[in-house]
This record gives sequence, structure tokens and C-alpha cells, in this order.
Amino acid sequence: MGSERIWTAALVVIGDEILSGRTQDRNIAQVATWLNEQGIRLTEVRVVADDPRAIGDAVNALRTSNDYLFTTGGIGPTHDDITVDAVAAAFGVPVVVHPEARQILEDYYRDRPGGLTDARLRMARTPEGAELLRNPYSGAPGIRIGNVYILAGVPAIAASMLEALAGTLEGGRPMVSVTVGARAAESDVADLLRETEQAHPGVAIGSYPFFRDGGHGANFVIRSEDGELAQRTGSELADKLRAAGYDPVEGGL
Amino acid sequence: MGSERIWTAALVVIGDEILSGRTQDRNIAQVATWLNEQGIRLTEVRVVADDPRAIGDAVNALRTSNDYLFTTGGIGPTHDDITVDAVAAAFGVPVVVHPEARQILEDYYRDRPGGLTDARLRMARTPEGAELLRNPYSGAPGIRIGNVYILAGVPAIAASMLEALAGTLEGGRPMVSVTVGARAAESDVADLLRETEQAHPGVAIGSYPFFRDGGHGANFVIRSEDGELAQRTGSELADKLRAAGYDPVEGGL
Repeated sequence: MGSERIWTAALVVIGDEILSGRTQDRNIAQVATWLNEQGIRLTEVRVVADDPRAIGDAVNALRTSNDYLFTTGGIGPTHDDITVDAVAAAFGVPVVVHPEARQILEDYYRDRPGGLTDARLRMARTPEGAELLRNPYSGAPGIRIGNVYILAGVPAIAASMLEALAGTLEGGRPMVSVTVGARAAESDVADLLRETEQAHPGVAIGSYPFFRDGGHGANFVIRSEDGELAQRTGSELADKLRAAGYDPVEGGL
Repeated sequence: MGSERIWTAALVVIGDEILSGRTQDRNIAQVATWLNEQGIRLTEVRVVADDPRAIGDAVNALRTSNDYLFTTGGIGPTHDDITVDAVAAAFGVPVVVHPEARQILEDYYRDRPGGLTDARLRMARTPEGAELLRNPYSGAPGIRIGNVYILAGVPAIAASMLEALAGTLEGGRPMVSVTVGARAAESDVADLLRETEQAHPGVAIGSYPFFRDGGHGANFVIRSEDGELAQRTGSELADKLRAAGYDPVEGGL
């Protein structure tokens, strides 16, 4: 365990619509879940405005400190889609029309009304030296440059790009989560949780309270890259909760 | 407009449960919406792990570059609640038991089973020199130190702390949003959008596509601190869309 390589990623969510509160973000949870399945740990997320400098600063800070960096948003055909320009500037390379992306768009729009307009052709622009990420959903591809993966902001399109990428990135073991729920005020079981975590190096236990049906409760999430250890710790925690008079529910409440 | 003071805030969301994908964040949209009502612009969000250094680095980077910094998460009674310690370290001050917070918790738990246990008393700990933020929902207060506002992670509790804070922070004019929707592929109206934005300094237009009922569409969001200007630009955009053969819907689709 201790000597095993840990693979990390960060995510930059690009969009005024998230920062204004207009749009409820869906990409953080989606990218986080997908990364975990690839055995890659999401270490940080930054949500930044549609501003070239803010995007560039976040991209440069996080791409050097992580194995992978993902971005979502700002790669459509309109004037507020500036991610490609900002990432190119962050890498110090020019923006080019990618021949393969142009071909994909020509094929995609051949039989669609309007054809490949100048606005649509914007979606073939990439930083020089980039490769394309398949978009089975709606044609216009995502982009990879170095360790930076540029995805669409529309969650369904980002999902289809992630699906196409699955299994292609080097990663470690997925983090395994085991959840135990109980109708306990978390403050009443705080010592029990701390002791259980301390007794099991390589395990992290999170405590997530809820108030439901007029009563307190909490879910305790045991996380480890060692699935067997996570299971064992979960069973032990359930035993301790039972001994303390609670009726723990494995799988969570 | 141009010379008016702009008030800014950043948000640090603290929690492994968000980075693992287990929990769908609700606090970004909630804090963003509330800040806008206070006339304060949310410039950046960072989601960081339950790690003292990650929390401290984010807090110190963002509190100096914004008028206000908010955090959510990590102020409960369990071992994984380390926000207070991390923020105190970031400010270079010790953690103390805040007498007023202790009193609030004593009152809150007096008639509740178990009373004020050591675990619950953890929720009276604050960085030295901090003030309390009222929590009408569940007793345990939030914390303010300098320009940093430390809120709970449970969205309903964070909401009640925000509600209690409303109207007490200095801010500018709220950003006004006007939305116009149309059954248009955004690439077909990209030029029209760019021209409309360019013709109205002080206005930003965002374009947010959707795919629904088997068809394309997009909402165009006109944002400005000048409400009258936002309305006027929205009407003009709707006129242009109508002239281009679309059937725009003011208020959005």
C-alpha cells in the first residue's frame, strides 16, 4: 500500500453560469466518480469565470501538480467559449484549426441544416499539438494537450467524452467506499469513529450527518484503496455501533 | 458604472465527500445566489480535501485577493472536522474555546439527551479573535475571522447561517440577469450574440445550449449591474432573434 503509486487529477470548471448560481454544477460529481473508477484521485476542483487569465492561472497551477487535469465548459461555438484560447495561451502555443476536427465537423454537419458555418468551425480550433477526444454524443470533439483533458460543459456531452476515454488512462487501484448508517447524533459516536480510524492505518472515515423524518442520523463512509480492509473496518464499526446500542445499517441510510 | 466599487468573494468547499463523487455539492449554487443578492461577485470556488495544508493554502490564497472568503464544511463534532484548526493555522493564531459558543451549546444541549459532551464541545472551538455567526437551524455557530466566513457543510445549516448574515455585508449592486430562450442551435446565432454583446458595454451575454424533446435550443443570459441596461439588451436580442426567424421566449426555455 504505502509504496504504491498514487495517481492524481484536478478539475477546472469553467463558467460564469456556475459562479452566478444560475446553473447547478453536475460535472464535479460526474468527473469525480469517473476518476475514481479509473483509479485516479481527484485532489482539487477550481471553478473559474469565463476569463482567459483566470482559466490560464488555474490550468497552469494544477496541471504541474497533478498527473492529469480536466476542464469542463467553454468549448462551444459562441463568443463566450474561450477555453481553447486560454489553454493555448497557458501552454504558450498558438491556436490552430485541427484538420481531423474539421473533418469530423464537416461529416457531422453535411446533412444538417446550415452546414459547417464559421461559428461551427470554431469547434475545430485546438491548441497546436493537441489530440482529439471522441464525442459520441454530438460530434464536436474534446481536446487533449499534454496532461490536460478539455471536455464540454453540458453534462451529457462531458459524460459521453468520459465514457469514450474510460480505461485509456493510467491509474492505480480505485478507492473503495463502505458506508454504514445509524440513527445516531454524530457527536455521540465521535470517539468511537476516531478510535476505529486510528486502529486501521490506510483507512479514512468520514462522518456525514443528516436530519430526516424529524430525527438525527449519520452515514459513516470508510474509504481505502484496500477493498478488503475497507470491508473489514466497516464490519467492525457496525459491531461497535451495535454494542453501543445503535442499529447500524450496512450500505447506509 | 465603470468607477463603481466591485465587491468580490471566493468560496472554499471543504470535503472528501465532494471530491470522491459521493455527495453532490449544493453549496456552490446556494452561496453564489446569496452573494449575488448581497451585491457581491463570486470570483472563484475551490473544492479541497479534508487536509489541513490544502485548506490553509486555499484560504490564504483567496482571502487576500477577495473582499470576502466563505468556507463550507468540516465544522462538526467528529475527527474529520478540521476546518477550524486549518483556518487558525492559516491565520497563525491558536484555537480557543469561544466562551459565547460554549454558552450557546450549553443552552442548546441542556435538555437534549447526553448533554454537552466533549465531542459536542469541539463545536465551540474557534480561531483566537473570531466572532460567531448565528445558526438558527441547529445551535452550533458558524465563525467569522477577519474576512473569512466559516459555514457548515450541511446545505440546510449553511442556508440558515447565510439567512442570518443577509444584509450585514457591504456590497455593491446585485448583478441582474435577463434570460431569453430560443429553439436555435447556438452556432446559428453566434454572430448575432457577439454583435449584441459588443454593442452594449457593461453587458455580458452567456449562451447555454440544451437538447430537449429531440430538438436543439439555447438560453441566452444577459448579465449587467445595470438592470435597465440588461432589460434593454434582452429586448433587443429578442427582436433580433425574431427578425432571424426564431420565436424567442423572454424568461428563457
